[in-house]
Amino acid sequence: MKILVLNCGSSSLKYQLIDMENEAVLCIGLVERIGIEGSILTQKKDGVEGKYVKEQPMKDHQDAIKLVLEGVLDPTYGGVKEMTEINAVGHRVVHGGEKFASSVIVTEEVEEAIKKCSELAPLHNPANLMGIDAIKAIIPGVPNVAVFDTAFHQTMPASSYLYGLPYRLYTEYGVRRYGFHGTSHKYVSQRAAAMLGKDIADLKIVTCHLGNGASVAAVDGGKVVDTSMGLTPLEGLIMGTRCGDIDPAIIPFIMKKENLDADGVDKLMNKESGVYGMTGISSDFRDICDAAAEGNQQAIDALDAYHKRVKKYIGAYAAEMNGVDAIVFTAGLGENGIDDRLAIASNLEVLGVKMDAEANKVRGKETVISAADSKVKVLLIPTNEELMIARDTLELVK
Amino acid sequence: MKILVLNCGSSSLKYQLIDMENEAVLCIGLVERIGIEGSILTQKKDGVEGKYVKEQPMKDHQDAIKLVLEGVLDPTYGGVKEMTEINAVGHRVVHGGEKFASSVIVTEEVEEAIKKCSELAPLHNPANLMGIDAIKAIIPGVPNVAVFDTAFHQTMPASSYLYGLPYRLYTEYGVRRYGFHGTSHKYVSQRAAAMLGKDIADLKIVTCHLGNGASVAAVDGGKVVDTSMGLTPLEGLIMGTRCGDIDPAIIPFIMKKENLDADGVDKLMNKESGVYGMTGISSDFRDICDAAAEGNQQAIDALDAYHKRVKKYIGAYAAEMNGVDAIVFTAGLGENGIDDRLAIASNLEVLGVKMDAEANKVRGKETVISAADSKVKVLLIPTNEELMIARDTLELVK
Repeated sequence: MKILVLNCGSSSLKYQLIDMENEAVLCIGLVERIGIEGSILTQKKDGVEGKYVKEQPMKDHQDAIKLVLEGVLDPTYGGVKEMTEINAVGHRVVHGGEKFASSVIVTEEVEEAIKKCSELAPLHNPANLMGIDAIKAIIPGVPNVAVFDTAFHQTMPASSYLYGLPYRLYTEYGVRRYGFHGTSHKYVSQRAAAMLGKDIADLKIVTCHLGNGASVAAVDGGKVVDTSMGLTPLEGLIMGTRCGDIDPAIIPFIMKKENLDADGVDKLMNKESGVYGMTGISSDFRDICDAAAEGNQQAIDALDAYHKRVKKYIGAYAAEMNGVDAIVFTAGLGENGIDDRLAIASNLEVLGVKMDAEANKVRGKETVISAADSKVKVLLIPTNEELMIARDTLELVK
Repeated sequence: MKILVLNCGSSSLKYQLIDMENEAVLCIGLVERIGIEGSILTQKKDGVEGKYVKEQPMKDHQDAIKLVLEGVLDPTYGGVKEMTEINAVGHRVVHGGEKFASSVIVTEEVEEAIKKCSELAPLHNPANLMGIDAIKAIIPGVPNVAVFDTAFHQTMPASSYLYGLPYRLYTEYGVRRYGFHGTSHKYVSQRAAAMLGKDIADLKIVTCHLGNGASVAAVDGGKVVDTSMGLTPLEGLIMGTRCGDIDPAIIPFIMKKENLDADGVDKLMNKESGVYGMTGISSDFRDICDAAAEGNQQAIDALDAYHKRVKKYIGAYAAEMNGVDAIVFTAGLGENGIDDRLAIASNLEVLGVKMDAEANKVRGKETVISAADSKVKVLLIPTNEELMIARDTLELVK
């Protein structure tokens, strides 16, 4: 069983072909600038030197996916000899609203429902649908599976997903907490249970997905009970360019001061804020760390604020679950930010956390980074959303 | 030494006359509907039956304060025989910005600075200034002291007060976390140390001021290190009519859906939200509790969400301080909400909290409500902002 995993953005597309016999990645690629001048596809294959590159016009996602399918058939850099070897396609879909609490085989009804959720993710869901439509057009008959970023979080109780807003905003427009990065939180929480040799049903886990977008989830007995992102991926942690939690009254205040409309303030919060806005330096945490190391006070404060926010969510979720057995770090900064992990999880003895500074000096590898006598295990687990999507797809089509 | 304490709102005024020899309240009163038809002053004196009432037109705060001074001179319901017995007046001022980290004697420079902070508290600071001006006009020469709601929180580090927003919004408009209810958080944290017989310098305390407006503060060694309200008193907990923390992206989303401008969405979040908006029942928690007891699901969810939010802040601040020695409940719901305190502080063994359900069955009385073997002491402490204002005033004028 070979499964193609597609993650379509508005002008880009990431893909992997995975052999589910052994979960090996047969090839992996990226298409950029779809529908824009300079479209380019780049594909690699593990163990093969060099890369497969196609620079040619791609006017839409169908054009891009045609080239992806040529790529995966390439005798040197591909992973299948014939198109028919691709048994199913797993699609990442960002927003499943309240409709989808798990992955589903794509039907016309499902497509319709994804379309309905587009209002909640106007930049993402339409692109995800374009990917599904392109596959249907080019290799009809192959089952498509939709795997939602929001699905794993659908177990949250009303007390976690309701905001302190008029109830009609929930019933009329679906204004509630949904949460994102669900596929990642699911993957790493399951890996954490496996690493600890325990049944996930018996564990309280706080998973910290710290990438350029970042979120924290409270996973009690394998089910999400709370998460930091909300209606959109803006809420919660300070991110690369996103502000995370702020006093909501700041928004009308700033709109009047700067003469901004709703779209203007949305852009300010999503694109001009985060550590980028706090420092004016960069949205890349490595640049902020470098500046902090050189004594830049704004960079130091931004990093301190970032770390403190994560630490506070860990404390909040430990209180909410009345316990925490494991804390997991994953995604870009979670996997590579040695100093960041240490700053976040040090001085947390109140929760029973004791870091092992030496064990923590590692990047991108599944390992325990807490001290042997730490009541709470702190784990570094590289995320693998594509594998999770492939597994969900396999489960539905086998 | 007798001190008059004034708390001026835009159309109301609360006052107390306090004898600082023994901190006894000599008389206490309330003026309502200043500048509106139906102005009325009501004053009481402890140990004296009935009340002193004046229903007469008051076109402004100066009119109101003239009547207040007549009231405190009343032979039956007042507290002084001659005006000259009033040695000083302490004024509550809501917003001191970054300028005031403690109470100050009011000078022209101070008045100017309070005026400058009005932009951050447009409903409150102007009213507070009217009170100061009226006292200056009617009893010139008596020292006025300004006691700020924000002052106690000024010890927060940048990592707590900076938002993940463009830094220039801080430098240009003062957009940062200030925090409110500072006088209350200060009073109850000091009382907590006294009740525990410890030096406040050695204590980590989480103070929960749960009134119709509500905030939580992390007080480490007597100094605030974080608090839940922000630039304005909207952030943090779910309140009577205020939404508290939400995904900031909800605001532009809702503005477009409902065709609201900045003022419209500000009103929605401040006046139409909270448990009132969540239930459509009332902004009074007693009504919500009654509805929940009758099985109203929206009321049950709203209360659960309210309690969970407080619990999460306690956990977050325990993590931030890496410890918590005491949790304090104060203000309306904190002092009277037996079930609320139990819901918030139960199932918090992860932090070392163990409630005593029997001891908790009490209202408005200084007492310990945690179990004898609870590592963390949970305290009920009625707040007394007026006394705190009088003490600060005495300190500055004696």
